[in-house]
Amino acid sequence: MKTYTAHVTVSLRRAILDVQGKTVERALHSLHMPALSNVRIGKYVELTVQAPDEDRARELVDDACKKLLSNPVMEDYSFRLEERVASGAVA
Amino acid sequence: MKTYTAHVTVSLRRAILDVQGKTVERALHSLHMPALSNVRIGKYVELTVQAPDEDRARELVDDACKKLLSNPVMEDYSFRLEERVASGAVA
Repeated sequence: MKTYTAHVTVSLRRAILDVQGKTVERALHSLHMPALSNVRIGKYVELTVQAPDEDRARELVDDACKKLLSNPVMEDYSFRLEERVASGAVA
Repeated sequence: MKTYTAHVTVSLRRAILDVQGKTVERALHSLHMPALSNVRIGKYVELTVQAPDEDRARELVDDACKKLLSNPVMEDYSFRLEERVASGAVA
């Protein structure tokens, strides 16, 4: 069994107005940062996955994204996996 | 002037209890996904940066993270920049 860390990002689809992002953008501009624009806000989820191999880990995270972490109607998700190398003895 | 896309993630410091993460973890377990654990929830911010070079873009995003996007007392942030290659004619 291997241990992976999954880094998941979930964001609103391009076609959907991101009100929170627009608000942050306005705030940045009033803080004199006009060089920053097109702000879009999403969620970032980090989790640990126990799986026999990377393919299975990918499946598990994909499943979690579809069932719980994202709303497939209005959000897109992407993730990357990172294998955690155990330091010291392993059972 | 170059255009960059910045991908920023902001998450609670390790030492701070992530109540939202714990709740999501419990939900995953009740959805029969016991292989997923240590869930931590953060924010993901995507934005466009106009800057003469990558160093300056990095400075601008760092500034925005410190002043608005994260709470330095209890959150950590990290970001990566991606240069956007203009397709077609540029002024």
